[in-house]
Amino acid sequence: MYADRIKDLKSSAIRDILKLTARPGMISLAGGLPAPEMFPLEALQAAAAQVLSRNGSAALQYSITEGLIPLREKIVKELNGDNAHLTIENVVITQGSQQALELLSKLFIDKGRVVFTENPSYLGALQAFRLFQAEITPISSDEDGIRVDALRDALRNQKPAFLYIMTNFQNPTGISLSLERRHELLQTAKEHDLLIIEDDPYGELVFEGEPLPSLFSLGGGKNVIYLSTFSKTIAPGLRVAFAAGSGEIISKLAMAKQGTDLQTNTLGQYIVNEYLESGRHHEHVDLIRRTYGLRRDRMLAALKAFLPETVTWNRPRGGMFLWLAFPPGTHSKDLLLRCIERNVAFVPGQEFFPDGSGTNTARLNFSNSSLENIDEGVRRIGKVLRETSCRTGEQADMLL
Amino acid sequence: MYADRIKDLKSSAIRDILKLTARPGMISLAGGLPAPEMFPLEALQAAAAQVLSRNGSAALQYSITEGLIPLREKIVKELNGDNAHLTIENVVITQGSQQALELLSKLFIDKGRVVFTENPSYLGALQAFRLFQAEITPISSDEDGIRVDALRDALRNQKPAFLYIMTNFQNPTGISLSLERRHELLQTAKEHDLLIIEDDPYGELVFEGEPLPSLFSLGGGKNVIYLSTFSKTIAPGLRVAFAAGSGEIISKLAMAKQGTDLQTNTLGQYIVNEYLESGRHHEHVDLIRRTYGLRRDRMLAALKAFLPETVTWNRPRGGMFLWLAFPPGTHSKDLLLRCIERNVAFVPGQEFFPDGSGTNTARLNFSNSSLENIDEGVRRIGKVLRETSCRTGEQADMLL
Repeated sequence: MYADRIKDLKSSAIRDILKLTARPGMISLAGGLPAPEMFPLEALQAAAAQVLSRNGSAALQYSITEGLIPLREKIVKELNGDNAHLTIENVVITQGSQQALELLSKLFIDKGRVVFTENPSYLGALQAFRLFQAEITPISSDEDGIRVDALRDALRNQKPAFLYIMTNFQNPTGISLSLERRHELLQTAKEHDLLIIEDDPYGELVFEGEPLPSLFSLGGGKNVIYLSTFSKTIAPGLRVAFAAGSGEIISKLAMAKQGTDLQTNTLGQYIVNEYLESGRHHEHVDLIRRTYGLRRDRMLAALKAFLPETVTWNRPRGGMFLWLAFPPGTHSKDLLLRCIERNVAFVPGQEFFPDGSGTNTARLNFSNSSLENIDEGVRRIGKVLRETSCRTGEQADMLL
Repeated sequence: MYADRIKDLKSSAIRDILKLTARPGMISLAGGLPAPEMFPLEALQAAAAQVLSRNGSAALQYSITEGLIPLREKIVKELNGDNAHLTIENVVITQGSQQALELLSKLFIDKGRVVFTENPSYLGALQAFRLFQAEITPISSDEDGIRVDALRDALRNQKPAFLYIMTNFQNPTGISLSLERRHELLQTAKEHDLLIIEDDPYGELVFEGEPLPSLFSLGGGKNVIYLSTFSKTIAPGLRVAFAAGSGEIISKLAMAKQGTDLQTNTLGQYIVNEYLESGRHHEHVDLIRRTYGLRRDRMLAALKAFLPETVTWNRPRGGMFLWLAFPPGTHSKDLLLRCIERNVAFVPGQEFFPDGSGTNTARLNFSNSSLENIDEGVRRIGKVLRETSCRTGEQADMLL
């Protein structure tokens, strides 16, 4: 009765984690949520009131599939800092970046077609690609991001539909692709006519150092489709994101979007556009940066204070996540079960590895907890780690 | 480079018509838009202000894929008028009904799988099914809706993924499935284990006579997935619709939605929920009914006054559309071209027929024009009809 693509469809960790975090007393370092207290609530209230009183009929009516023109103009202006050649024909508004991933899958993935991703990679992207029955080939990453030498090796054997990559403060690891690697990657893409999907939801959330130029801007828009979103800098519930790329691909993407959901919600687009016109966006992003930066610092301090020396972690320069490795042999899923009993949650890293490795790793979110809860959450993890042995993997599977 | 499904993807008539209607002076009887002056604007302004001041953080944050629980509870209560067995597990909120059609395609259509539709059928549904490379088998319809005898014949040869049907004031014809046919259809579905997708965006917009029970309620929810939307009774720009069905199918649908766009926009769901709580929804729908009823009446009167006797049309008892047949041999596409020169537009009917028939038919929308514009629009069509011969089909194709 169901289509083939549905046969292996299972509820994902993200989904169940969202349910998990609703339990009272739980400190969740698991979710991928921005801090709701950082939503520019008053400005959004003003923007909503303004668009409904001034453009009510239009903001509530059907609109064009490509997205609100003034909003696309603003996005183009922002992108044209580096790419003066872009017009609104190069941008389509999507219902969150997740929809962009879905539409790009629709555009490029036939059943069984190979897609390259980082290893680990974003779970939502893997889900989208798998719904189109892609064969995922993960490419090794290190502390500078995807390994271009490994990519070159893979390209000798396979020609993928595209390479999917998060260049800044990647979900789940928080790692960014170094500038040198960006150049190498673009060179490789050019040589192999490789299409790159550059997903950049966190790029603006940089705590230290200069932001690195996107592949999209470095490569002059060639071979690269660039995705970004207002979910992390304004608010995710509006579901307003965008895809930028060649006019030809963007127009196909809009055609596919038409049969998919007609258009992104009009009101959310109007609100985002109005909010951006207030001119306070960049200032507000600075505030988010500083806030998340402090939370990361607190998490780093807590990890040092409360976790055994056998545990290692990285120091992301931005974003929302930190990446952790328990001692080899530890099963993060088992550990999670015990942590949940102590009312603290994280995401076991294995979920993010298409090749099923990373069993001893974990993703910790620092954007959506107070400094006190970061302390207490990490302290609880530390306590569990110092206790006795873990449960069986079978029980963990039931829960996740 | 592109997936197979994209190779034949073309911009649809709906898309181009939306562009067309932007021309100044144009009277468009083409679009499928509700009347923006009928949006409950003040109540929506109040609802938006209320949810942002009271639930701001939640209304702007990520939320669960299935959709806002209080909103699903209200939908269940409404549906349970006839189906007391439903719970919120039977309902998922979708980003417009178009997304429900996309997700159901994802769930049930493998490449080359057969889907049954009415003939003619809703263009957006055909688009969604074609994106999943369905083979469309159209089943003949008459003034009582789909012909169940024709369906039985077709079932002898083919087992479709599902039958897609609009039971009330169908888009494009405005025809409803008679009560007798509803019973026959359910009986046939039961005998053949046929899944029915019942799409009902216009069912509440009934101008005369009693509303007919849905297939979903008549059949006790068995074999039927029911789709409806707030786009026509509140406002389409919020993109809030829903699918109801068996818990098993709805849970699969939610899983597919997760990889598709994570969730429907949170703010729109909160606004619709708050608006429904105000208790003025049914009263407002009555107002829409009366207004659209008057517009239909005016269109019927104008057709009688201005169109040659060789043209025939129906008298829909609700909805937004009226269906028209020009004399055999007339090519509606050619006629449209000439009409556009006179600043009036409609949708040529052929677009809606999977089998390519209906070349002399047209869909006229009466919901989105003033009484004066309905008069003048129909008068202009009449004038064009009384003039000399039509242009060539080739030119018409360039435009549409």
